[in-house]
Amino acid sequence: MPLFAAIEKIVGPRGYLHKPEDLALYEYDGGIDKSRPDLVVFPESTEQVAAIVKAAAEAQIPIVGRGAGTGLSGGAIARAGGVIVSFARMNRILEIDLPNERAIVQPGVVNIDITSAVEADGYFYAPDPSSQRACTIGGNVSENSGGPHTLAYGVTTNHVLGIEAVLPDGSIIDTGSNYDQPGYDLTGLLVGSEGTMALVTKIIVRLMRKPEVVTTLLAIYDRPEDAGDTVAQITERAITPVAIEMLDGPLLRMIEDAVHAGYPRDAAAVLLIELEGLKETVDEQIDQIRAACALCKAREVRVAANAEQRELLWKGRKNAFGAVGRFSPAYYVQDGVVPRTQIAPTLRFIEEVSKRHDVAISNIFHAGDGNMHPLIMFDPRVPGEMEKVRRASDEILEYCVQVGGSITGEHGVGMEKMEMMDRQFTPATLDTIAAFKKLFDPGCRLNPGKVLPTGRGCMEIRQRPGDLSL
Amino acid sequence: MPLFAAIEKIVGPRGYLHKPEDLALYEYDGGIDKSRPDLVVFPESTEQVAAIVKAAAEAQIPIVGRGAGTGLSGGAIARAGGVIVSFARMNRILEIDLPNERAIVQPGVVNIDITSAVEADGYFYAPDPSSQRACTIGGNVSENSGGPHTLAYGVTTNHVLGIEAVLPDGSIIDTGSNYDQPGYDLTGLLVGSEGTMALVTKIIVRLMRKPEVVTTLLAIYDRPEDAGDTVAQITERAITPVAIEMLDGPLLRMIEDAVHAGYPRDAAAVLLIELEGLKETVDEQIDQIRAACALCKAREVRVAANAEQRELLWKGRKNAFGAVGRFSPAYYVQDGVVPRTQIAPTLRFIEEVSKRHDVAISNIFHAGDGNMHPLIMFDPRVPGEMEKVRRASDEILEYCVQVGGSITGEHGVGMEKMEMMDRQFTPATLDTIAAFKKLFDPGCRLNPGKVLPTGRGCMEIRQRPGDLSL
Repeated sequence: MPLFAAIEKIVGPRGYLHKPEDLALYEYDGGIDKSRPDLVVFPESTEQVAAIVKAAAEAQIPIVGRGAGTGLSGGAIARAGGVIVSFARMNRILEIDLPNERAIVQPGVVNIDITSAVEADGYFYAPDPSSQRACTIGGNVSENSGGPHTLAYGVTTNHVLGIEAVLPDGSIIDTGSNYDQPGYDLTGLLVGSEGTMALVTKIIVRLMRKPEVVTTLLAIYDRPEDAGDTVAQITERAITPVAIEMLDGPLLRMIEDAVHAGYPRDAAAVLLIELEGLKETVDEQIDQIRAACALCKAREVRVAANAEQRELLWKGRKNAFGAVGRFSPAYYVQDGVVPRTQIAPTLRFIEEVSKRHDVAISNIFHAGDGNMHPLIMFDPRVPGEMEKVRRASDEILEYCVQVGGSITGEHGVGMEKMEMMDRQFTPATLDTIAAFKKLFDPGCRLNPGKVLPTGRGCMEIRQRPGDLSL
Repeated sequence: MPLFAAIEKIVGPRGYLHKPEDLALYEYDGGIDKSRPDLVVFPESTEQVAAIVKAAAEAQIPIVGRGAGTGLSGGAIARAGGVIVSFARMNRILEIDLPNERAIVQPGVVNIDITSAVEADGYFYAPDPSSQRACTIGGNVSENSGGPHTLAYGVTTNHVLGIEAVLPDGSIIDTGSNYDQPGYDLTGLLVGSEGTMALVTKIIVRLMRKPEVVTTLLAIYDRPEDAGDTVAQITERAITPVAIEMLDGPLLRMIEDAVHAGYPRDAAAVLLIELEGLKETVDEQIDQIRAACALCKAREVRVAANAEQRELLWKGRKNAFGAVGRFSPAYYVQDGVVPRTQIAPTLRFIEEVSKRHDVAISNIFHAGDGNMHPLIMFDPRVPGEMEKVRRASDEILEYCVQVGGSITGEHGVGMEKMEMMDRQFTPATLDTIAAFKKLFDPGCRLNPGKVLPTGRGCMEIRQRPGDLSL
């Protein structure tokens, strides 16, 4: 049976898109790359996913899973064409088990909806990407997403207890029960595998109890280095805030114009620091953080007086990328990680790169983790501009690796950073990674052209629409 | 070159053992299985490990890594003979990096020695198996070991940031930098792979700041169910102690006779509860836990008044297995996990099994995690006794799986529970696990006869000593 007919048999006539104008919506994600799929399918069950995967395997067509398409490394782009499996219709919370602090969800559930479903009972789901009002758990699992609260709670892999997934041959695996899986850690391997090994169809997530008190501070600086030093001072005092975010001056002004979060327009940098716990603990930590900020020459430290003020401070941070979009025709945000002690020199290096390539770079990042998000602003209509941006970005990532860091903290490798993987790993380690890919997906049909550098990874077989018998 | 000569060339004449009386010391671990290796080698560097692995690969001889041999599932037993690689001489802490909260260590470093090296500066290494004064980090990584404080801090995999390892062909891989490794989670896959994929030669571990205050409580009960209910009550109050250990009456009396920890001889059960944090937090939590204990009919709640009293309470718990050894010719300890809400029914089921098979079973376990350690006492000299014990054990583990739990929490699968893996996983998932093993170790020479059930796993090729050209 031709693929087209097979797919319609599985999901019905309203279960897929194939017209060019419909497909155009699925050629982007949140990054800068694009490529058009040949077909977008909307399964409603694990069995439908397995049937779609089997049909695509017979037709030898590439398959790419997709959540909300908010990813920043090109993970959901069908760069070799083929079928996009959208999880938009597999968006149900299947079970909430509060006594055992877990929930079972479908991949299309929006991140924030898990917290919404349990917060009245005093629980929440911890990983909080900036896109959490849109992004899905399936996408979070694929990219092992983080967020501002990663500092205290870790990334997605620390909150996933088990997975059901469809392998490239259509078989369904279940990585174990809900508790302490014996043997190899399949769950951990699938989290962060960026859709190159399996399509995740069900996820058991950990729920956490909401803290008694949450407080947010804004520390304001006249020099960015002083903000960097404050992070080291806080660590030295043995306090772990749940979040320490840094935003530089230019970004503050762009955000303020767009969001009116109450950020100071004349500052060189701010730290957004969040504390959680019992009231007594938080009160004591506020005093210690005030002392650390004062020692590092903070001009002012504001403490949010209530939930509204707190939400306003976070609104600025969470809408930062949107704010930049009002000022620059395009921007490119990177995701390098450096040891916490290397933040200040890395900021200086980014400034050098900015001057040398004559591109505007602003900094907004998870300072507590050393997870830098340099944001390069540019105009893609100017010839040569895109190339300049990519060179600047590559130099920053190479610097991160050199000082003992990594090319990605939470956005994934995708198609964006795959050619940088040989800076991070030795050939023997890359061979091991490639062997994994081949083990799961010998035909190289699952999200081809991602994660591994060209030559070690999968060939990109561009399928003509004709092959789909459309 | 025959293997014998090749090994001597790599490690010198004092770098290996081969006489039967020496090898006899290496045929056991902390479990109940045994098998004698043909050779035990003591490398002093990664390069020596790689050379040994290459030589063994040429001779097609099995290789088994070994730390301190304290494991409880037969992980370090050379069940197919061959070469044991002991990491006793690779026991150095290579680097301590306090500002970035990590240390780089060799696999033979004893667990407690990491904490000893950093505690003066206010840091510690969190996973704390009962054997932590003897067991090594390499063994902890292989088995993904836990301990009483797993409840708050997680198991070994949550504290390992990167790994260097030797693959079965002798090549050396490095799973990434110290921070947020891009791509597939090789570190996570190797942790808990029980020596079946690679020999770990270097480990980057996370260090944590010591809390301001640590307090230990002993809650004493006349009925074991009341202790189980208290665990649920504590969870309901949104308190996460760093440890909640349960010990039943018979065990209390055995421990008290051996260790004199001050445990009540006439109790039916106790909970050992530990709290950590700032002083104000801990004081408030003590009040809440007292209330929970009172509600669940605890006869008495004692709070350790100082560090000495605290250490004495833990001394009883950590020496429990030794204490049992004084009373029973042999014992067999299991490692099943159940959802926290299933602890009370599981205790009732264990009592039924005990009566039905007429074997004495005592319970000591990580109650907060639902990680049960039923301890079956027996005399191996009585014919048929061993078989009875294994049957009782299997029934308990099957029950754990049925109620949504697992056959192992922290001891690993090893050779002890491999035949139970098909109760835990579907055939498709077991095929995936087997494919991993084959990917890393196509010749099935690394720790053969472990983790996977017979038929799906590796053949056990018993090498005659003659093959080693000894």
